[in-house]
Amino acid sequence: MYTIGIDIGGTNTDIGLITPEGKCLETKNLKTSNYTCAELFIDDIASAILQLMDHYEVSELQGIGVGAPCGNFYEGTMSSAFNLPFGTEVPIKAMLEARLPYKVAVDNDANAAAYGEMTYGGAKQYSNFIMLTIGTGLGSGIVIDRKLLYGYEGVAGELGHTTIIPSGRQCSCGREGCLETYVSIRGIRMTFAEIAERENKHQDKGEISLREISNLANDGDPIALETYDYTANMLAIAMANAQCFSSPEAFFLMGGAVECGDILLEPLKKYFEKHKLFIFKKEVPILKSFLPKNNVALLGAAAISVCEN
Amino acid sequence: MYTIGIDIGGTNTDIGLITPEGKCLETKNLKTSNYTCAELFIDDIASAILQLMDHYEVSELQGIGVGAPCGNFYEGTMSSAFNLPFGTEVPIKAMLEARLPYKVAVDNDANAAAYGEMTYGGAKQYSNFIMLTIGTGLGSGIVIDRKLLYGYEGVAGELGHTTIIPSGRQCSCGREGCLETYVSIRGIRMTFAEIAERENKHQDKGEISLREISNLANDGDPIALETYDYTANMLAIAMANAQCFSSPEAFFLMGGAVECGDILLEPLKKYFEKHKLFIFKKEVPILKSFLPKNNVALLGAAAISVCEN
Repeated sequence: MYTIGIDIGGTNTDIGLITPEGKCLETKNLKTSNYTCAELFIDDIASAILQLMDHYEVSELQGIGVGAPCGNFYEGTMSSAFNLPFGTEVPIKAMLEARLPYKVAVDNDANAAAYGEMTYGGAKQYSNFIMLTIGTGLGSGIVIDRKLLYGYEGVAGELGHTTIIPSGRQCSCGREGCLETYVSIRGIRMTFAEIAERENKHQDKGEISLREISNLANDGDPIALETYDYTANMLAIAMANAQCFSSPEAFFLMGGAVECGDILLEPLKKYFEKHKLFIFKKEVPILKSFLPKNNVALLGAAAISVCEN
Repeated sequence: MYTIGIDIGGTNTDIGLITPEGKCLETKNLKTSNYTCAELFIDDIASAILQLMDHYEVSELQGIGVGAPCGNFYEGTMSSAFNLPFGTEVPIKAMLEARLPYKVAVDNDANAAAYGEMTYGGAKQYSNFIMLTIGTGLGSGIVIDRKLLYGYEGVAGELGHTTIIPSGRQCSCGREGCLETYVSIRGIRMTFAEIAERENKHQDKGEISLREISNLANDGDPIALETYDYTANMLAIAMANAQCFSSPEAFFLMGGAVECGDILLEPLKKYFEKHKLFIFKKEVPILKSFLPKNNVALLGAAAISVCEN
């Protein structure tokens, strides 16, 4: 059966009609930032869904999945969703279900990515895996026995905010030395700046982008290479720690920071083998997401409604 | 129904008959170190079980649980069990089931402790909790939805070997900066020695025991107090990290390092509140094990056979 995936961001909201095989037939777009009233926003989402169904002559849906910043699976809400213009909490599941006769499931972006990989991507055959989304921040979705791990408060799987260096870099969450302060686009740029300052080089460049750093690394620049080496080592320690916790069969990576060829992935694999605890004997592949980049978020959102949890 | 708990250590093996309420009626003891042949060892365990059943006129058992160093739940073996005189792997489940008509379940000490707490102790009402056993080393058992977490390789839940300080203290496992190099009896003694050396004090005492350190702390000795403060901070960071992973309802602590009053527990609770990620709103109690100290291991072992997993 067909599903609907909804990807809500601060600027844009995409609504896609997804085939059972995981193909996105068409996407409708709303400007999230244009709405100040959640009721009108949800009205327009419901209209878009009906238009898509009508156009493709789809008479029924398996479900509707919503990926949103701070989406809460248990509550069906977008809670404390900074950058969204609707106040502190939007009961989006209840609001959509009041308008349409289909089951709605909500979750955050990283869990959605894990659902997407499990349903339509490279994790179809894995019962236990960890998805790491490494972009501006670092998100994670932890799958155990084909189920997302939610825990007591429904918000488990926040590996980006585990301390990797006590009293390390200040994180926006309030903790210090969080993994995402080192392993994220922001973290990589900060590492580059620190090494450049230590070596007294590249400081003329000012704010340097991740793309520029990865280009420098590909050209053999020692500062850029050391930056990726350091980042890979930090991530490998965190992944070896995660393995001690839940012993996954595989890790999947996606997001802006892993899209620069093998500059990150190669040292990451080397360091993971170095750091992994000796009791783990089997090979644990570290893979890039198999999902098509342009529809990752929509496929992930749609998959939330497909999976049982 | 009654169960049998078997606690296998390098020196002693205890076999206890346990009531459904979790009372140990009687314990038989074997000297593990006297046996060089696993077959004879298991023969004598089986005899001891039959003697206990006979004496208390118990005609049937719910099951037999075995807690052993490096006990493997999936394989039913004691694998690479250093300090045991029987070679590298003993298929203890198969060997006992060949001798007695009851189901046998095997696991390591820390998981057994978690099973014990869930079945007979303070975790009866918790679906999600983490047991930390802090003795010579640091073991852990992670319970999610009333099930022990085993993961892909059956050996998940090794929080003692997660890196808490990259490039920190060398651990016997091969990794560096493992939690148990800081938070364990050995780790606490090493911290005390380091602080004492820095402050140029207490060095006349030579190798100091945990009991002596805790006595000093109770007497207000600043080195001992700083030792506990540092240990509590490290453990609190690790617990806040574990909360980011699986969001437990409670933490349980047991073992030699937590039996010295509130010297560890008080700063631990303070630091946990400091380090916990802001998205976790509910109170997560940090509790000492409710199990009677003299029978912790036997009750834990027995509980393995009671729980479904």
